[in-house]
Order: sequence, then C-alpha cells, then structure tokens
Amino acid sequence: MSSAGKSAVILVSGGLDSATVLAIARDAGFTLYALSINYGQRHVWELNAAKRVSEAAGVTRHLILPLDLRAIGGSALTSETPVPKHASADQIEEGIPVTYVPARNTLFLSLALGWAETLGAFDIFLGVNAVDYSGYPDCRPEFIDAFQNLAQLATKAGVEGRGEWRIHTPLIDLTKAEIIRRGTELGVDYSLTCSCYDPDSNGIPCGACDSCLLRKKGFHDAGLADPLRYAKQA
Amino acid sequence: MSSAGKSAVILVSGGLDSATVLAIARDAGFTLYALSINYGQRHVWELNAAKRVSEAAGVTRHLILPLDLRAIGGSALTSETPVPKHASADQIEEGIPVTYVPARNTLFLSLALGWAETLGAFDIFLGVNAVDYSGYPDCRPEFIDAFQNLAQLATKAGVEGRGEWRIHTPLIDLTKAEIIRRGTELGVDYSLTCSCYDPDSNGIPCGACDSCLLRKKGFHDAGLADPLRYAKQA
Repeated sequence: MSSAGKSAVILVSGGLDSATVLAIARDAGFTLYALSINYGQRHVWELNAAKRVSEAAGVTRHLILPLDLRAIGGSALTSETPVPKHASADQIEEGIPVTYVPARNTLFLSLALGWAETLGAFDIFLGVNAVDYSGYPDCRPEFIDAFQNLAQLATKAGVEGRGEWRIHTPLIDLTKAEIIRRGTELGVDYSLTCSCYDPDSNGIPCGACDSCLLRKKGFHDAGLADPLRYAKQA
Repeated sequence: MSSAGKSAVILVSGGLDSATVLAIARDAGFTLYALSINYGQRHVWELNAAKRVSEAAGVTRHLILPLDLRAIGGSALTSETPVPKHASADQIEEGIPVTYVPARNTLFLSLALGWAETLGAFDIFLGVNAVDYSGYPDCRPEFIDAFQNLAQLATKAGVEGRGEWRIHTPLIDLTKAEIIRRGTELGVDYSLTCSCYDPDSNGIPCGACDSCLLRKKGFHDAGLADPLRYAKQA
C-alpha cells in the first residue's frame, strides 16, 4: 500500500482492536489522526487507555469529542442496565446483546467523516471485527460498504471528485487470536489497552463481561500471555 | 398515509423548512419527537426558535443534544470564517458554499437514528430541499436513499426485521414558495422561525445571507407576507 504522506482518521476506543488498527495504519505509512468519543460510557478508563495507546503510536493529534449518548439511552453501556457476566466465552448468548448502543458506529463514522473532510483526508480506520464479534449489526461488512457509499455522496470532497472515500477495516476477517498476533508483530503494547465493559473503581477489568472473555480467549488461542490482570481470572 | 399512533423523530433547526416538516408529520398522524442539535452554531437564536416551533406543534418531547462541531471546524457556521452576504438571491454563488458543515446531515440523521431506535420508531423526518437548496451535497435524494439503506443495516431493529426504516423528506421536490404555501395551509406560524445564518445580537435576521435571501424570495414568489423584520430589507 502506498500511503506515505496521506492522512487518516483512526477511531480509537482504547481497546485491543483499535490499538492494533493504529499500528496497522502507521505501518501502511499514514499520518495518524486519532479520534475518540466521550459518549458517557460508564468509565473513564477507556478514554485514558485511548490516550495512552494514541501517544504510544505517535499520532499527530488525538481529538476527544464529547457526545453524551446517555440522553438517547437504549444500551447497557449508556444507562443503568446491568452488563451481562459469564464464566467463559462459550456461554455468551447468541444474538445482539444489551451492550449494543443504537447507531453507535454510524455516529462514530460520521464524526470521523466530518473531521477527515476538514483535514483533507479520505481514509478512515475502524477496528470492527465480524468473526469473534459481539453480534453488533454495525460491525458487519455490508454496513461498512453502505457507509463508504454514503460518504462519497454526503461530502463536498466526495461530490467534487477530489478523492475516493475508503473505510478501512483491517480486522474484519481476523479472529481475536490473529488480531493479537498481528499487533504483537507490529510492536503493540497491549498492557496499555482496556477492553472491559465494566471495570472496578480502580480500573481493574472484570474478567467476566463478553469483551473480557473474548480477549482472554484470544490471548489463549494465540498462545500469548495477556499482560492485563483481571478481577476474576476464571 | 396511515400513521396514527406511530412515533417519528423530526430534526428541527428552528428554520422555516423544519417548522413546515413538523406540521406535515403532525398532519400525517405521527406522535412527534423533535430533535435539535446544539452544534456550536454562531447563535442561540436558532435553538430558541426550535423550542418555540416544537412547542407550537405540540410535540411529545423536544430533545436538544449538545455536539460541539467547532472542534472539527471546516465551516463558516462553526468557525470564524465570514458568512457571505449578497444584495439578492440571484447573486448567490453556484457550487457548495462556505456554510457547508462537513458531514452535518450524516451526523444529524445518525443521532435521529439512535434516538428513534431507542423509542421504537422507524420514521425520521428531515427538511432538506433539492430545488431552492443551497448547494449542499447532503440535501440530495441520492444521499437520503443511501442513508435509508444504511439505517436498515446499521440497527438492531433493522437487522431483526422489526420494521422498515424510512427517511421522510417531504420538502425535497418543493420550491421555497411551495413550502411556504403548504405550511401556511397547515397553520404554521412563521413568525416563530429563524432562518438567518448571521443574526445580530438581538436576534434580528441580517436579510443578506443566502438563507435570508432564499426565504425572502420564497415569500415573495408565494405572494405572502414574511412576518419577520430584517436588519436589511433590500
């Protein structure tokens, strides 16, 4: 990929996936603009991890936009609905879980689109994954294709033909173990990341939510040690 | 249209167009949920108008979401770039103007989508117009179609087949004069609305920005009196 000198906006949550995506975009030669959304999620640990991860990747700028989705509600991550816990990854329920945030990736990609257009960039990176994913509709390839099509129609830069929008999802076909192996090759320090939906008051990950379980299984399957310590090692 | 009892989210800016859309959605029998975005536009007059217009339409709820787009910039409406002024509507430049806000309608529709999904609604109304429009790419029918397609793929409600998303744009093929005539038939009080991009410190519309000029021309062509007083009557 010849991307030297081109700018890209990378959505960075502070989790394992987006830390890997940052490393992939850097490896491809992009100048990195990291975007994190403070959407009223239950914990600030995620945003602190996003700062650490962005700094470690050497981004040109890290923009944290406030957008309080608690006014909209509808999710265990933005309301008082409890986050489900399980003993192991094979006990995670099928279907779309209560941690689904209505229209979240549509919103986040829209914010990335607006910032990218202002920067003169046409490349957006998002760490969605359709293999070991958590059942979210807006993590599927057909959603990403539809958004890429929309971007071309929605923007001045697209309509004036100054470039082709591209939504990069380099993890979409990888298992969690493959993501961790790829990131490890690229030197990602996973001790800086935070994947938990429900960490304790000291930021210690619970070890039992869907996100912790999928992460732990990923490290196990990759044959690598997870540098995080969990409240529940299970 | 048999919409009695169905809920709809209507994006309300406080301008002439969205006031008319509210009246059309009410006339169709929808229960009305008005959504306004406080995106750091230069004046609070627009949001005050949105409140007046929503109250007059008898909405069930009016939600004002803060989303400060000044952090992204890129527009005369969210930065210090001057708003262009002209003597009459036929002097408005062709092409996409500096008042274009990157990805604005994509963002606003995404927020409406998230709120609608939480409410169990599938209908969103937006007052875009492709005839006397101001050259914005995200006011065109092909953009609206692409967003409607995206909504079905992006949401839990869409993927689970609980309904068909519909983005209603009842003004899209109307001239400004036709919009004003339709609203007048439906009893819209246009004295409550605010269309100006650059009102003075007392909220008096300038009378010379693209938005004021198109509004004045619309009332003139409709053979109706504009209830607003302008700083510059031109």
